[in-house]
Amino acid sequence: MINRLTERIQKLEAPVVVGLDPMLSYVPESLQRAAFDAYGETLEGAAEAIWQFNKTIVDAVYDLIPAVKPQVAMYEQFGLPGMEVYRRTVAYCKEKGLIVIGDVKRGDIGSTSAAYAAGHLGKVCVGSKSYAPFDEDFITVNPYLGSDGIRPFLEVCKEEKKGIFVLVKTSNPSSGEFQDRLIDGRPLYEWVGEKVAAWGEECMGDSYSYVGAVVGATYPEMGKILRRLMPHTFILVPGYGAQGGKAADLAPYFNEDGLGAIVNSSRGIIAAYRKEPYASRFGAENFGDASRQAVLDMIEDLKCVRP
Amino acid sequence: MINRLTERIQKLEAPVVVGLDPMLSYVPESLQRAAFDAYGETLEGAAEAIWQFNKTIVDAVYDLIPAVKPQVAMYEQFGLPGMEVYRRTVAYCKEKGLIVIGDVKRGDIGSTSAAYAAGHLGKVCVGSKSYAPFDEDFITVNPYLGSDGIRPFLEVCKEEKKGIFVLVKTSNPSSGEFQDRLIDGRPLYEWVGEKVAAWGEECMGDSYSYVGAVVGATYPEMGKILRRLMPHTFILVPGYGAQGGKAADLAPYFNEDGLGAIVNSSRGIIAAYRKEPYASRFGAENFGDASRQAVLDMIEDLKCVRP
Repeated sequence: MINRLTERIQKLEAPVVVGLDPMLSYVPESLQRAAFDAYGETLEGAAEAIWQFNKTIVDAVYDLIPAVKPQVAMYEQFGLPGMEVYRRTVAYCKEKGLIVIGDVKRGDIGSTSAAYAAGHLGKVCVGSKSYAPFDEDFITVNPYLGSDGIRPFLEVCKEEKKGIFVLVKTSNPSSGEFQDRLIDGRPLYEWVGEKVAAWGEECMGDSYSYVGAVVGATYPEMGKILRRLMPHTFILVPGYGAQGGKAADLAPYFNEDGLGAIVNSSRGIIAAYRKEPYASRFGAENFGDASRQAVLDMIEDLKCVRP
Repeated sequence: MINRLTERIQKLEAPVVVGLDPMLSYVPESLQRAAFDAYGETLEGAAEAIWQFNKTIVDAVYDLIPAVKPQVAMYEQFGLPGMEVYRRTVAYCKEKGLIVIGDVKRGDIGSTSAAYAAGHLGKVCVGSKSYAPFDEDFITVNPYLGSDGIRPFLEVCKEEKKGIFVLVKTSNPSSGEFQDRLIDGRPLYEWVGEKVAAWGEECMGDSYSYVGAVVGATYPEMGKILRRLMPHTFILVPGYGAQGGKAADLAPYFNEDGLGAIVNSSRGIIAAYRKEPYASRFGAENFGDASRQAVLDMIEDLKCVRP
């Protein structure tokens, strides 16, 4: 899957992932109203509104980008109907040829991580049958529990030729509280980064590992160091756009091959229609077109950072 | 909810939580067969088997214990039908008067943690209505992202009078890989523990905070230090029993009031019927009775550690 990701990025010249993190408030009112008319102001109604919203955006942008990153929390908050739309969104994006990075940030002790790995990347056995319940291509994973919490994901990645992105340095303002603390003179995120590189060595694709890292766009100096520390690690870069990360700062996340990083934008794309310059040009009724234009602009914006 | 937890522990003299972490292989064959006869060897069939298994165990032990801790991964791995049984298990346990600790280990940047907090502990708004999709009493939370990833949980805890248990020192063998690394001469878990105590100060119940900590039974020396460092923090102690933690080692996790800790056992209780001395006494057909006896034995075993 990591080979497919690099191929798609090269073909589309777009190291871009669109974050499908729909707050209900992002869904245009007319779409919400239609969903509530059909299902009432229920969890089913909210899920339907989000599904129609996602579908329109995916239909508008799928040919421009290699990957999407649905944030499961935005679906999980609507309970079972929300999780059904998460599953359906993953399946629909894959049908459209998109690579799906499930932003689930799971991670637990070994036997429990094995269950998450089976449910999200692999298969579960039921009697003589097996099923792939959520079937993302990649998921994000939290490293706080150490190697034995990660290993079950690696096993499934090898079997299924799928991948994970391990949180190394996150994009949020207080990420440094623990991640930046110095251990033997070097910040925790560097130690985590080194582990990620080591875990990745045993699951190599052609040029990059199945084991990637999450490094926020908001910390480019750290991105530079981590790029060097993890030469074969693909970096998923959140925090561009709405969270404050700028294209000009993103060069250090890329390798000289122009690869090695994929930049996520969520709100900046899916809620583009609510902000200028897209609001007056497209309006709420054409929110899909607004998202498409925002993707085109993002691809253009990122041209400056690639060799 | 933390006040209710301490009251129930005192009343039952049982600082015990039963981990409802059902592997499908724990479910006796006759129960699996009945579920597969009704639903086929499908995700629905697996979920039904787990539901019947859970229900029997909860019916057998609910009067002995204050709380249960369903591990969501064991449900999530069976997709939507699994998540429905997770939700149903939470609701059923609450009906039975049990306090429910959802072992979900979620945690993300602020806006995303807010969605998890709403979905698991609080309410989500849909138009003019609001819903509590999963509605656990407590959930476990991962601290790697720092304060702004935790704060949305605190806000919901205050509103709903619910609680969280933050991972501090986990019970697994490689937990030390990052958690034990020294920062200014003290291990990371102590720094996390201090933060947990600080977060907890703003959400105090009568004697203990709504913000608890997870500290594994497998590291009693560290438990001792963390107990002192977080005097008003309730400690959820996994790792007793199957993972190797012994009752005699657990005294340091408790305060002088005999409170301050609650010890989890999962496999040791729910799969008791598969091991001696319960296997020959109860057998698979009476697995609920075996679980009840295992709970009684655990309560007895823990008597030695309380003042």
